[in-house]
Amino acid sequence: MIDKLIQKIRKTGAPIVVGLDPMLSYIPQSLQQEAFAEYGETLEGAAEAIWLFNKAIVDATYELIPAVKPQIAMYEQFGIPGLAAYKKTVDYCHEKDLVVIGDIKRGDIGSTSAAYATGHLGKVQVGSKSYSPFDEDFATVNPYLGSDGVKPFIDVCKSEGKGIFVLVKTSNPSSGELQDLKAGEQTIYEKVGALVDEWGSDCIGSCGYSAVGAVVGATYPEMGKILRSVMPRACILVPGYGAQGGKGADLVHFFDKDGLGAIVNSSRGIIAAWKKEEYARFGEGSFADASRQAVVDMIEDIGSALKQ
Amino acid sequence: MIDKLIQKIRKTGAPIVVGLDPMLSYIPQSLQQEAFAEYGETLEGAAEAIWLFNKAIVDATYELIPAVKPQIAMYEQFGIPGLAAYKKTVDYCHEKDLVVIGDIKRGDIGSTSAAYATGHLGKVQVGSKSYSPFDEDFATVNPYLGSDGVKPFIDVCKSEGKGIFVLVKTSNPSSGELQDLKAGEQTIYEKVGALVDEWGSDCIGSCGYSAVGAVVGATYPEMGKILRSVMPRACILVPGYGAQGGKGADLVHFFDKDGLGAIVNSSRGIIAAWKKEEYARFGEGSFADASRQAVVDMIEDIGSALKQ
Repeated sequence: MIDKLIQKIRKTGAPIVVGLDPMLSYIPQSLQQEAFAEYGETLEGAAEAIWLFNKAIVDATYELIPAVKPQIAMYEQFGIPGLAAYKKTVDYCHEKDLVVIGDIKRGDIGSTSAAYATGHLGKVQVGSKSYSPFDEDFATVNPYLGSDGVKPFIDVCKSEGKGIFVLVKTSNPSSGELQDLKAGEQTIYEKVGALVDEWGSDCIGSCGYSAVGAVVGATYPEMGKILRSVMPRACILVPGYGAQGGKGADLVHFFDKDGLGAIVNSSRGIIAAWKKEEYARFGEGSFADASRQAVVDMIEDIGSALKQ
Repeated sequence: MIDKLIQKIRKTGAPIVVGLDPMLSYIPQSLQQEAFAEYGETLEGAAEAIWLFNKAIVDATYELIPAVKPQIAMYEQFGIPGLAAYKKTVDYCHEKDLVVIGDIKRGDIGSTSAAYATGHLGKVQVGSKSYSPFDEDFATVNPYLGSDGVKPFIDVCKSEGKGIFVLVKTSNPSSGELQDLKAGEQTIYEKVGALVDEWGSDCIGSCGYSAVGAVVGATYPEMGKILRSVMPRACILVPGYGAQGGKGADLVHFFDKDGLGAIVNSSRGIIAAWKKEEYARFGEGSFADASRQAVVDMIEDIGSALKQ
């Protein structure tokens, strides 16, 4: 799957991923009303609004981008109906041949991590039948429990041709409370980076990158530079661009010299573009066109930063 | 909710929690066949088998115990139907007046953690209506992202009277890879313990314990002793008893002098008791009675260790 991701980045010329993290406040009133008219102001109604919103954005952007990253929390907050909208979104993105990165940040001890890995990336056995319940292509994984929390995911990556991105240095303001602590010569994020490099050493694709990638926030470019060298074979998933303050120029150190090795996520900046002054000309009714324009602008911003 | 938990521990005399972490292999064939006869060998069939199994165990044990801890991964591996069985289990345990600790180990950055907190412990707004999608009483939370990943949960705990258990020192063999690293004078788990104490300082119940508790594995009793003093107001959720190797005598340091302040989880040791030689006399058909006996024995084991 890492090969497919890199191939699609090359083909689109767009090392970016659209974060499908819908909040009801991002969804135009007309679309919410359409959903509520059918299902009422219920969890099912919220889920339908999310699905209609996602579908329109995917339809408007899929030709330009290699991948999407739905954030499962935004669906899980609407309970079972919300999670059904998550699954419907994953399936629809596959129909459009997009690589789907499930931003699930799961992680537990051995057999429990194996259950998450099975549910999201693998196949679960029921009697004589087997099923792929969520079937994302990649998942994000939390490393706090150590190797035996992460390895069950890697086992499934190997058997199913999938991939993971391990949280190394997250984009949020307080990420340093634990991640920046120094343990001997190295910080915790460097230690985790070294583990990522080790964990991924025997699942390197023909593209030269490993099925085990890393999450490093755009908001910490200097640390991105360090981590790029600590994990030379990891593809870095970079959140924090746009709304969180990361800019194209901050991102160059996350990439290799050939302009590969990183994929930059923007969520709010793209899916809620219609609410920004910059794209207000599109109007609420053309929210998906605003998202498309925001994608075009993001590709341009990152492309020109990488050229320099 | 921490007050209710402590009150129920006092009333039952049982500082224990039954981990409802069903694997299909724990479920007697007859029960699986009953579910498959109705739904086929499908995700729905697996979910029904899990539900029938959980219900029987809850019915056999609820009078003896204060709380249950369903591990959501074991449901999530069966996709949407599995998660619906999780929700059904949570609701049924509430009917039986059990405290429900959702072992979800979520954790993300600000607004995303807020979405998880809303979905699991809080209320989500849909138009003019609000809903409690999963409605557990407590949730487990991963601290790797720092304060702004945890605080949205604490905000919901305060507004809804709920609680969390933050992962501090987990029970698995490789938990030390990150958690035991020394940063200056303290290990990472001590740093996280100190954060737990700080985070929980303004939500202490009338029982004297905070709504912000901690997870510390039974498999590390010496660290439990240290952490008990680092976090004097935290209730400690202790996994790793039984199948993972923790024994009653290992647990005394997790408790305060009054025998409170900790709650010990056993999952496999109770729900799959019928498969153990010790309880084989019950037979497959009386698997829930075997679970009840395993609960009685666990209460006795911990009770006698605490007496010494």
